[in-house]
Amino acid sequence: MPQAYNKLCDTFKRIHRLEHLMAIGSWDMYVLISNKGSQARSEALSELGVEIQRRLTDSRMGEWFAAAEEESLNEVEHVNLREMRRVYQQAVAVPAELNEALVLAGNQCEFEWRSQRPANDWVGFSKNLREVVRLSREKADILAHLKGMSRYDALLDEYEPGMTSARIDEIFSDLAKWLPDLIKQAQARQASEPTIALSAHYPEADQHALALDIMKRLQFDFDAGRLDSSAHPFSGGVPTDSRITTRYDESDFLPSLMSVIHETGHSRYEQNLPAQYAGLPLGQARSMGIHESQSLSFEMQLARTDEFISLITPSLNKHLKLDPPLTPQQLGQLARKVVPGKIRVDADELTYPAHIMLRYEIERALIEGDMEVDDIPEAWDARMNQYLGIDTRGDYRNGCMQDIHWTDGSFGYFPTYSLGAIYAAQLFQAANRDIANLHENIQRGELTPLFDWYREAIWQHGRRYSSEELIQRATGSPVSTHAYHQHLESRYGDQ
Amino acid sequence: MPQAYNKLCDTFKRIHRLEHLMAIGSWDMYVLISNKGSQARSEALSELGVEIQRRLTDSRMGEWFAAAEEESLNEVEHVNLREMRRVYQQAVAVPAELNEALVLAGNQCEFEWRSQRPANDWVGFSKNLREVVRLSREKADILAHLKGMSRYDALLDEYEPGMTSARIDEIFSDLAKWLPDLIKQAQARQASEPTIALSAHYPEADQHALALDIMKRLQFDFDAGRLDSSAHPFSGGVPTDSRITTRYDESDFLPSLMSVIHETGHSRYEQNLPAQYAGLPLGQARSMGIHESQSLSFEMQLARTDEFISLITPSLNKHLKLDPPLTPQQLGQLARKVVPGKIRVDADELTYPAHIMLRYEIERALIEGDMEVDDIPEAWDARMNQYLGIDTRGDYRNGCMQDIHWTDGSFGYFPTYSLGAIYAAQLFQAANRDIANLHENIQRGELTPLFDWYREAIWQHGRRYSSEELIQRATGSPVSTHAYHQHLESRYGDQ
Repeated sequence: MPQAYNKLCDTFKRIHRLEHLMAIGSWDMYVLISNKGSQARSEALSELGVEIQRRLTDSRMGEWFAAAEEESLNEVEHVNLREMRRVYQQAVAVPAELNEALVLAGNQCEFEWRSQRPANDWVGFSKNLREVVRLSREKADILAHLKGMSRYDALLDEYEPGMTSARIDEIFSDLAKWLPDLIKQAQARQASEPTIALSAHYPEADQHALALDIMKRLQFDFDAGRLDSSAHPFSGGVPTDSRITTRYDESDFLPSLMSVIHETGHSRYEQNLPAQYAGLPLGQARSMGIHESQSLSFEMQLARTDEFISLITPSLNKHLKLDPPLTPQQLGQLARKVVPGKIRVDADELTYPAHIMLRYEIERALIEGDMEVDDIPEAWDARMNQYLGIDTRGDYRNGCMQDIHWTDGSFGYFPTYSLGAIYAAQLFQAANRDIANLHENIQRGELTPLFDWYREAIWQHGRRYSSEELIQRATGSPVSTHAYHQHLESRYGDQ
Repeated sequence: MPQAYNKLCDTFKRIHRLEHLMAIGSWDMYVLISNKGSQARSEALSELGVEIQRRLTDSRMGEWFAAAEEESLNEVEHVNLREMRRVYQQAVAVPAELNEALVLAGNQCEFEWRSQRPANDWVGFSKNLREVVRLSREKADILAHLKGMSRYDALLDEYEPGMTSARIDEIFSDLAKWLPDLIKQAQARQASEPTIALSAHYPEADQHALALDIMKRLQFDFDAGRLDSSAHPFSGGVPTDSRITTRYDESDFLPSLMSVIHETGHSRYEQNLPAQYAGLPLGQARSMGIHESQSLSFEMQLARTDEFISLITPSLNKHLKLDPPLTPQQLGQLARKVVPGKIRVDADELTYPAHIMLRYEIERALIEGDMEVDDIPEAWDARMNQYLGIDTRGDYRNGCMQDIHWTDGSFGYFPTYSLGAIYAAQLFQAANRDIANLHENIQRGELTPLFDWYREAIWQHGRRYSSEELIQRATGSPVSTHAYHQHLESRYGDQ
């Protein structure tokens, strides 16, 4: 009996139970909470967060880790121990006061952003952001020393263990070579396509019924999750009760439909993590990049194929009572429309990575100390010009103030969006190689072979492998932009 | 600065934040949870419960209480200290292992009850119940020694601080004198009333709209709470986000309507507790009996008056699309119908106390050791005969196995239902004395004076006074059955 290892597992399982209530309490805050309830809820969640941190940094943990090293462990136990240590080391490295200061600075920055953004008030916003950046550098510095890597890499490693900015530079410099031209090609070609006017009203209830229908097709387990609506779509909850949300725009059905497919991808990963390791690292999702690769496998790889589109067109026409009905060709054209724009969350599949490259380059320079907050607007504008041909000068609200991804100090997160897209392309290409007649199956609605492939390749493994190992084992090749480039070329290029 | 007192307040406020997440996590379990999510949720709630207990029994608490005794405190601080000590003393008195054993025995008893009840399996059920009673006696014994009172009184004191079985005996022996006859009178008189056939279908959505309409009239604060549906109506959440539920029966609108009014009473008490003391005893509801007095003030005292019924009849006819519409007289007749039956939760205002007297007498004898589990069916039948003229021999499923109030060991809780009814009658009589033209106001929908009276008399005080003091201060008289008897006589008697 590995006693110390068992004590660690018991501690992590108990922490996981508290995290369960964090997850539900947060979900509820975004989906249901009453106006007057937010303040008390924030305080409650923060108290539970402190308790989780307290348990992670308990004085006995260090001894248990040291003792567990000496115990005879099997392979599964070794993986759990390795991953528990990761979490522990990070938790003890950053002083509670610094974390608290970051939360406070982040809250203030976000709170004032709500009025500063509409007022296009960069000066006011940058003052708060400077404090967030200062504290984030301090945190990054601590983690950099701990891990023996650069400041930015130390933060990136929290979201995508094992990934480095050297690898991301490789990947993004490849993208930068062909992406801007491909965007121009796609735009030029799409300019000659017939216009599809969507001027009808699409009632929320009809869109909701359509969403449930599509989720069923995607084998979402409704006994272990639910769909609701919230201001911004997200996926939350726990593996046994995975909760996704969407937002209905009654003048356009596509954003809600696609966000539901996206979140369903996240959810199926969660719902299919190995239940026997619930509460331990082996029962948890690998990383943010791998998580995003599942949502994008659903939303971009699967859902935008001709075959899937032709499969769901009848449901869409029926639920939305479209008259005249859309043809699969029309739906495909809508779903694959390329429109460079200023706002990341509205971006299409092809222009999205440009937004991520821009954010990565800026946030990396900010954290490494090669750029200051005051330099952001100029750097932003230069890259928007370079990648998307868009001038953003003076338009802070739709430029560097467009979202709150930096206000809470989550630097290092942005690249995982594009890593997810790259992993997804590589995975789907491998699935297509491994599964006989994949596209014909999709067209007939036979999705089980595809999902079985994902379960086998990704879902069942939890945190057993690093992201790169996981992709390598699933596809037989190291992570590369090759499949991604081929995919985008074949979907958007002139061929 | 009373340092020890402040440490206690800080600890209790932090505990309250964790209780907030207990409340929301439990609410969610009854209202939203996915089938496969219950097990992990139970474990999560239990983990948080253990954490709350750990904090309450922290080794420094004893010192702080001792030191706070010596500090110079104002009146408010004295009240908080007194009530924090109550909670603390109870928490430290009962060993964690005993509490855990009780939870386990209760879970098993309830779990097996689910199949034993439909099978009318008293032998199987009684085996589990014996264990629950055994452990409950053990707990009661500990509390009895701590408080210097009898075992049953020690449990009762948890739910209704300061109340004793001697007082309840007085009250119930008074009830026993006139209640059975009054029930017979009411039945005889109602036998000659015209029959009102409710054979229509009342869609859930219409009942829901009606419920929201009535809640608005009752000044429920929708910015600090919500209405949902669940298998059994209840009120949960926190004061800033008070969540009530109902259950819709599409063949009868009255149960849902009345349960919504009942839960709204609970909710308005919660929503109007003094916010400046949030998380401290002064910001919390006094007792279960006082809580029930608020729900019954709404459901029984206010809502079944001729004036309120005439006020809401048009809404009811409109939302439920009744054709022909009901007259206020008909609605009143339905709302005040007396039908003795075996099932407590279906009982009307007049027969309900008979169920409570029966449960009280049995549970008290069980805890004091004057009765054993095997004796319950006979004792049950004797009292059902005496109070309601109903024979329950052999029908365990609709007799002593009808609900799960005993399975989890919450002995001492039952009397608070009838105390609530008695307090409610006394409060409403006093409000009627203090407010000019109360009944005319109600008929016109002017409910603010009534609610202001309740805020002043009850809601604002939190735990400042004991239940009996609170009623005495609010009404000018000590708690007695006088107003309750008058109320029931005038509503149901021959006069």
